[in-house]
Amino acid sequence: MVSPATLETALDYRFQDASLLEQALTHRSHSARHNERLEFLGDSVLNFVVAAMLFKRFAKIDEGDLSRLRANLVKQSSLAEIAQKLSLSQYLRLGEGELKSGGFRRPSILADTLEAIFGAIFLDSGFDAAQKAIARLYMPIIQGVDPKTLGKDPKTLLQELLQGRKLDLPTYTVVATHGAAHNQMFDVECSIPALDIKVSAPGSSRRAAEQLAATQAIAAVQALGLGKGAARRGRARKSAQLSLPVAVSQENK
Amino acid sequence: MVSPATLETALDYRFQDASLLEQALTHRSHSARHNERLEFLGDSVLNFVVAAMLFKRFAKIDEGDLSRLRANLVKQSSLAEIAQKLSLSQYLRLGEGELKSGGFRRPSILADTLEAIFGAIFLDSGFDAAQKAIARLYMPIIQGVDPKTLGKDPKTLLQELLQGRKLDLPTYTVVATHGAAHNQMFDVECSIPALDIKVSAPGSSRRAAEQLAATQAIAAVQALGLGKGAARRGRARKSAQLSLPVAVSQENK
Repeated sequence: MVSPATLETALDYRFQDASLLEQALTHRSHSARHNERLEFLGDSVLNFVVAAMLFKRFAKIDEGDLSRLRANLVKQSSLAEIAQKLSLSQYLRLGEGELKSGGFRRPSILADTLEAIFGAIFLDSGFDAAQKAIARLYMPIIQGVDPKTLGKDPKTLLQELLQGRKLDLPTYTVVATHGAAHNQMFDVECSIPALDIKVSAPGSSRRAAEQLAATQAIAAVQALGLGKGAARRGRARKSAQLSLPVAVSQENK
Repeated sequence: MVSPATLETALDYRFQDASLLEQALTHRSHSARHNERLEFLGDSVLNFVVAAMLFKRFAKIDEGDLSRLRANLVKQSSLAEIAQKLSLSQYLRLGEGELKSGGFRRPSILADTLEAIFGAIFLDSGFDAAQKAIARLYMPIIQGVDPKTLGKDPKTLLQELLQGRKLDLPTYTVVATHGAAHNQMFDVECSIPALDIKVSAPGSSRRAAEQLAATQAIAAVQALGLGKGAARRGRARKSAQLSLPVAVSQENK
């Protein structure tokens, strides 16, 4: 294991009580003094600090959008990404079983450990220090956030994209199912008649196939290069559909 | 509406920017500058402060229990109770419709407004002031918390009560259903053979009836006055069942 001092440098924070950092890095598979209580504390200080940052940065958006943005920024995969930038896996203290099964790469363990570190900093030096450490990691991310889209699912995004152009909503149709009942795959077609767009995508559930089809439909709409209100130009650029990396069914096949 | 100054006294906090308190007290039905963004902020500072208080007070309990306790302390009904102690309904700024329909008594509005006030204090004076205000309201509550039981449902509590006495788990049986399909009522019997306890309770779902039956069974067990490991005295005190305010079915009816 690499010395935690290099992690402190990456965090730009020096622990007064080094045993707190050690505990934050300790998975429950390793020893009894593990990081799960610190994770509880860190999760809540993180949620609050990110809430306050979003509140300040986006003065005009409503609380529903603030919640959606925060949920996306503090979700496991987002935390695990930050943990990777800190090379956190090098410092983890895991039990033998977890070590062998690659626990140091597992997003859940990385995310939980990062939260535990925030909790440990709060215990070590109080709120301001924890806030500073979190803000330092999150500021570059929050600067780049698009509050209109982050964390929205593809079907919602497609719907908003079409509403913004005053076009009818897309329709989703299951066009095929494959496989046995316990392992079924669905093909869903997403159709936007006003733009002559029909794309289809597979998924292990109807919902998953719809979301993937919506993702492809968004790409198809964007490939048309429509500005707002320019829907009437859609038909002239129909060939843009064909540049997509997905099978685009022809309307009159 | 009573002057917000008396509310500030109840909160033991004086706002530098009085318009923040006004906004925190303003429901969205009243005007555009309402409290929903402040509620988002206040909810997250509250969650964090209560997490930190529980972490400190209960040094030995695990993160699952900490989460359960916190969820119970910050849930709507708990917040509404605190709001009532502050006489918050006197200060609410509601639209006409909400006023007429008694919105000032609605637990959701009271709870949301209290959260918005915490958010407003944070904006007005920073984290320490918000923490102080929250801690002042929550400390007496947290002092009285039983970490073993708070927020557990009756079936879980009954199970733990019996396990602590090394007795078999209770059984739940639907003994009757009444009413039409869309409006059915269930009678569920909870039986603890080792203690000769059988109680039954109604509910609009099987689950609700089971929980109510468990509540009554807990009362029946407690009425037996058993110390831990004193289960064998149960039969001698069978008559204690009859003192319950609920119908106790006789074993051999």
